[in-house]
Amino acid sequence: MKKNLGAKAILYPMPVLVVGTYDENGVANAMTAAWGGISEETEITICISDEHKTAKNLEVHKGFTVGIADVANMKAADFVGIVSGNKDSAKVEKTGWTVEKSSFVDAPIFAELPMVLECEVISYDAPSCRLIGRIVNVAADERVFNEDGKLDIAKLNPITYDPMNHTYHAIGECVGKAFANSKL
Amino acid sequence: MKKNLGAKAILYPMPVLVVGTYDENGVANAMTAAWGGISEETEITICISDEHKTAKNLEVHKGFTVGIADVANMKAADFVGIVSGNKDSAKVEKTGWTVEKSSFVDAPIFAELPMVLECEVISYDAPSCRLIGRIVNVAADERVFNEDGKLDIAKLNPITYDPMNHTYHAIGECVGKAFANSKL
Repeated sequence: MKKNLGAKAILYPMPVLVVGTYDENGVANAMTAAWGGISEETEITICISDEHKTAKNLEVHKGFTVGIADVANMKAADFVGIVSGNKDSAKVEKTGWTVEKSSFVDAPIFAELPMVLECEVISYDAPSCRLIGRIVNVAADERVFNEDGKLDIAKLNPITYDPMNHTYHAIGECVGKAFANSKL
Repeated sequence: MKKNLGAKAILYPMPVLVVGTYDENGVANAMTAAWGGISEETEITICISDEHKTAKNLEVHKGFTVGIADVANMKAADFVGIVSGNKDSAKVEKTGWTVEKSSFVDAPIFAELPMVLECEVISYDAPSCRLIGRIVNVAADERVFNEDGKLDIAKLNPITYDPMNHTYHAIGECVGKAFANSKL
């Protein structure tokens, strides 16, 4: 028996995306978003309300990065999701993150985040909050790869956002292979 | 030091979304998608390639459901992501899932999946594979709620897809509260 919760933005799992942009003076900004995901082969879609400094920055530089928040950076990722870049231009500085310029797009990378998607703006539509980006590169710390050259999710240690309880969770153990059950 | 992986659809965590639709004869179909996420307050966006039976079904019924795949239903969710509804109209039957009609939209609910989003089609654009749906209700099994009426992610036990290793993972322990770090 199912219980109705109404029209809500609830999904499991939801990501914790740290969107990095430069402002008009080249100062790095970061904001955290949970409403988004891969939308095509090399495309990501994220909801960015136009009151965010990020929205303005996207128009100027036409590029952004998406850092994957991990357990080690959970508090800083939460912080940049709460504090507005319009009110506190030192917000990134307060995280202690090392800012590096992406080699692929005009946007900052926060070195401490273990993985980053480097994206060009395809479109941004303020009324629908819809940012669509072309993923031009994905980069991850050498330390999060296994010996066989594959990303190791346990080393990456990403977090997921629980939208009903407003908590963050780690990712758990492997429970099976995908594309493995062509017969039941 | 980061290692470049190129332009890829890699994100952590990614969801395992079981999209439920009815065909022109009212037969339930299911397909699994990992490219998608919440895109607004009451909106979900999912990439559905137009060769899928689901794409045709969406045009006919203007509604769909999104079941959250859990550990118990991992194999069946993987199965409906591999087998085409165009080639095997009995694919849902093979999962053993109980099909119930949504009270909110013209689409089937698979009762064994612990949570479901019931959605109206806002738009579907085949060239971009972009399905945008309005979430009109979210429903979850009574057994996945805590005594305080909140969803319990450990009881829900959703899975996440690892796009680099093609594996499914459970969600792990709570590592912190969100909206809790307004100062660092």
